Amino acid sequence: MSSLNGVVPPVCTPLTPGYEVDVPSLVRLVDHLLDGGVDGLFVLGSTSEAAYLPDAHRRVVLDTVVGHVAGRVPVLAGVIDMTTLRVLDHVEAAVAAGADGVVATAPFYARTHPVEIDRHFRAVADRAGIPVYAYDLPVSVHTKLTADLLLSLAADGVLAGLKDSSGDEGGLREVILRRGAGFSVLTGGELTVDTALWMGADGVVPGLGNVDPHGYARLFREAAAGDWAAARAEQERLLRLYEMVRVGLPRMGAGASALGAFKAALHLRGIITHPTTALPQTPLNPGERDRISAHLATAGLL
Amino acid sequence: MSSLNGVVPPVCTPLTPGYEVDVPSLVRLVDHLLDGGVDGLFVLGSTSEAAYLPDAHRRVVLDTVVGHVAGRVPVLAGVIDMTTLRVLDHVEAAVAAGADGVVATAPFYARTHPVEIDRHFRAVADRAGIPVYAYDLPVSVHTKLTADLLLSLAADGVLAGLKDSSGDEGGLREVILRRGAGFSVLTGGELTVDTALWMGADGVVPGLGNVDPHGYARLFREAAAGDWAAARAEQERLLRLYEMVRVGLPRMGAGASALGAFKAALHLRGIITHPTTALPQTPLNPGERDRISAHLATAGLL
Amino acid sequence: MSSLNGVVPPVCTPLTPGYEVDVPSLVRLVDHLLDGGVDGLFVLGSTSEAAYLPDAHRRVVLDTVVGHVAGRVPVLAGVIDMTTLRVLDHVEAAVAAGADGVVATAPFYARTHPVEIDRHFRAVADRAGIPVYAYDLPVSVHTKLTADLLLSLAADGVLAGLKDSSGDEGGLREVILRRGAGFSVLTGGELTVDTALWMGADGVVPGLGNVDPHGYARLFREAAAGDWAAARAEQERLLRLYEMVRVGLPRMGAGASALGAFKAALHLRGIITHPTTALPQTPLNPGERDRISAHLATAGLL
Amino acid sequence: MSSLNGVVPPVCTPLTPGYEVDVPSLVRLVDHLLDGGVDGLFVLGSTSEAAYLPDAHRRVVLDTVVGHVAGRVPVLAGVIDMTTLRVLDHVEAAVAAGADGVVATAPFYARTHPVEIDRHFRAVADRAGIPVYAYDLPVSVHTKLTADLLLSLAADGVLAGLKDSSGDEGGLREVILRRGAGFSVLTGGELTVDTALWMGADGVVPGLGNVDPHGYARLFREAAAGDWAAARAEQERLLRLYEMVRVGLPRMGAGASALGAFKAALHLRGIITHPTTALPQTPLNPGERDRISAHLATAGLL
Repeated sequence: MSSLNGVVPPVCTPLTPGYEVDVPSLVRLVDHLLDGGVDGLFVLGSTSEAAYLPDAHRRVVLDTVVGHVAGRVPVLAGVIDMTTLRVLDHVEAAVAAGADGVVATAPFYARTHPVEIDRHFRAVADRAGIPVYAYDLPVSVHTKLTADLLLSLAADGVLAGLKDSSGDEGGLREVILRRGAGFSVLTGGELTVDTALWMGADGVVPGLGNVDPHGYARLFREAAAGDWAAARAEQERLLRLYEMVRVGLPRMGAGASALGAFKAALHLRGIITHPTTALPQTPLNPGERDRISAHLATAGLL
Repeated sequence: MSSLNGVVPPVCTPLTPGYEVDVPSLVRLVDHLLDGGVDGLFVLGSTSEAAYLPDAHRRVVLDTVVGHVAGRVPVLAGVIDMTTLRVLDHVEAAVAAGADGVVATAPFYARTHPVEIDRHFRAVADRAGIPVYAYDLPVSVHTKLTADLLLSLAADGVLAGLKDSSGDEGGLREVILRRGAGFSVLTGGELTVDTALWMGADGVVPGLGNVDPHGYARLFREAAAGDWAAARAEQERLLRLYEMVRVGLPRMGAGASALGAFKAALHLRGIITHPTTALPQTPLNPGERDRISAHLATAGLL
Repeated sequence: MSSLNGVVPPVCTPLTPGYEVDVPSLVRLVDHLLDGGVDGLFVLGSTSEAAYLPDAHRRVVLDTVVGHVAGRVPVLAGVIDMTTLRVLDHVEAAVAAGADGVVATAPFYARTHPVEIDRHFRAVADRAGIPVYAYDLPVSVHTKLTADLLLSLAADGVLAGLKDSSGDEGGLREVILRRGAGFSVLTGGELTVDTALWMGADGVVPGLGNVDPHGYARLFREAAAGDWAAARAEQERLLRLYEMVRVGLPRMGAGASALGAFKAALHLRGIITHPTTALPQTPLNPGERDRISAHLATAGLL
Repeated sequence: MSSLNGVVPPVCTPLTPGYEVDVPSLVRLVDHLLDGGVDGLFVLGSTSEAAYLPDAHRRVVLDTVVGHVAGRVPVLAGVIDMTTLRVLDHVEAAVAAGADGVVATAPFYARTHPVEIDRHFRAVADRAGIPVYAYDLPVSVHTKLTADLLLSLAADGVLAGLKDSSGDEGGLREVILRRGAGFSVLTGGELTVDTALWMGADGVVPGLGNVDPHGYARLFREAAAGDWAAARAEQERLLRLYEMVRVGLPRMGAGASALGAFKAALHLRGIITHPTTALPQTPLNPGERDRISAHLATAGLL
């Protein structure tokens, strides 16, 4: 795989009401994303509810998406787990399924240390044999990956890139400016895509890209063509659409609200059969779903 | 299983240098703990490196310990994972292996909410069919379980008890005083066992109990007999021994230092064959192991 | 002042509805506390709303309390401010007013470092010329004072003692066991006073001691006399009374709820004229005040 | 004062070795900044070491800067303190000194609540009678100001603008897009000024602007003229210069390192007489000052 860029949405995982992977819905969602013009797919990330999915579910997702995509775009696989040995099991499953790259966080739950984070990524890369992307997500992992650590791992060939969901745009820019060739930087900041691309980022991993992949693909093409004003207008439209993620607050967690909103939108758009989110997330109620519908109508997506 | 009490150490998981479970060492460790007079065993907790162990390792630990104990004391099994569906898989494995109870934390990595934590424990109890203990460990999970939540779940028969590693002794006392009959409260605060028992706690889950189970068993018996001065003296001795957990700081993480210290001590005492801790933890160096040896000598444990 | 011990309540600061110090109420409160049998007074601490009081208010409090006490018990003065030079101004005011000791936190707001915390306390002690007590309050200051730092400062004669409101009972015990002679350890953990005294603490700084000083004084005397069962019963009674601090949650901050509860109780007991708390705290409403009244009635304090 | 925009550096506070305000150096620094082409000055902010300065020092700073500027550019004054009544004292001092606006954070040290933050800003505005800017600085205050709170206060005429040092660029953008006319948004993110301006921010408050005001002024003028490529190149140059802030890590706090770097640079550039930072910050050593010198040389500032 050459250096990764463009729009690489973290693919939602449609579920049946009994919490099994809804494979036909997942296939339709992949088609919807490819039709939207995305440049890659990231399965088993946070927006995919990877933290909620048993290993058997993860394998179904991997097999379904890798098989259905059939090489049309690269497929990255999250290997999210607490520490190294558990992550290595996910790495093996991802490689066996034919993923084009893996995406790993720093260790969590366990109390860790910069030296141990370094050792963790080296062990992951040794096992993977395919590109490894660091996933910087302090809100979940409670550790921030520093520019020095990332660039040292990149220089040693351990990391092929970064998915930055830290929200630290100054730190992101420092990595962009100091990195060497071939190190992809993707932002998870879906409200600042135009500015991240302006700084030199290679692409974006937008959760809202499940709902409106065409919008993010337009944004990226406009930026790539140098039409920054059009990119900004598109980003501002998407920012307003993004307000849907707060629909369930404060009666549920921020995760349940955002993931519930994305899945309700996909359901309302006819792409997935059930808006079910995994246990123990609070489901949206009818009033909340109506508000999602209003957001979609405003955005011309119904 | 009747209401749980006494000394229930979180059993370390001996590993080979290649990071496999060292079954003969684990059997010797169980014998060492039973010889020490403990009242139960807690496998696959944080001190067991559960966050570091793949599922296959976890199954070996469960089968080995449940099989070797053969009902002499209750065996609790940690079911530590990010969210409900993943935890339910561990619950099934624990029940199948014959565990006497399961120990579950609040969800982590995922952003959660009190309503969702409640729903999580209810789902765990529905699946388990054996006693469920809540594991309050904010340092890892980044959520504190409130007295109101715990007692409401206890009143509904969801929870059989609490393992409190929150360090919040006022909150612990509130739970003790407000709980109903049959709800076990175990403290993970291994430096305040005498005072927790004085407040009314039923027992303790001491990581250092791997190294010196006889000491913790004496402490508990002395307290149970009302000889609080002897219990205090024993606790103060154990507090000094506990200083070993900082041996590797600050060049490694606090987890690697503490788990490395416990395993080095077990190795030096001839109980386990290798002091290996799981990836990516930094191993202790010879100087650090010498300091562990000095701690053991001071405590009369060599 | 010889080594400090016993019950040293953090004295609430009665305010007029216009947010001036209500001096007659403050005098009555001091009499109430002395009548309760307390061993010292701590003015301008967190429970005194020091963070809410302008310097002129602070001076009125100091002058009023030091003057009215007239040496009957020691009066400690909080010197709470962000960093050293500002704290030194408060130190000078406290010394000029005749305080018997000062109580200082680590720097806050500014991003700090262990070396700088050390330097801070040394500068405070150099200026004070009277005993300096470290105030460990991570919930406000966002830094935990370590045993090593405290004991090193104690060994150098910088610190005369510790007021520990960290909630870390294991750390508290470590300080108690490792300290030298003459270093006072007071706990701010008002739900675990009997056990802190059992560990060897010298005294307690209980916010609830404003409302029920007689109760805390009894608890301390019983413990000092070795009647630990009586001390425990008293502590358990006080724990139930302490539930009043949550009366305003979640519609206000935890500080406003607790301080509002203490002041409402003092008002209902006829000790202070107004239950006013300082801006911007949310005042209790009539229903909440009724619940405080019920708490007092249950405790036999009306 | 009409709506604020442009480059508004937070003015460093030069100190003598005895920690008094070095007035001649402060005057030279103001001249340096005005010569650099800045659009306003922000005194008594975090970069001004406001948290370290006693009230008497603060008054000297206010009088010196307001007097010397004499209306050539607006002067904003920080009123940083723990809670409302204390902040109101600073407000009165700032108004009396002739400041053109005040900048206030949410309460800190005290445990607070959104309703109380709202009440705090309303009390500040009632007293000030001059424009009030909210200062969003979670790293110091441990509370994030939400877009909903800010915009509600703006709609009621309480707030004239925002200085956003939260690092949350998505949140910043939301405020920019949702605000009404006349509400100024200044970013404290000195590594992302071009992109913040691109999003619609009105200006920047760059700590590094003390060292290189000409650079930030060029950046702003280029952006205002639509020459975004030139603005980006300038920003990237400043990002490299900004690396100086880490010169003292990890042997000192992040604040001491950054403030020490700025003051060392101003000293090396001949603008201030002493590089002294306030107690208890660790001073830079000669080797660290040499590294600052090298940074300046690389940037063509020596």
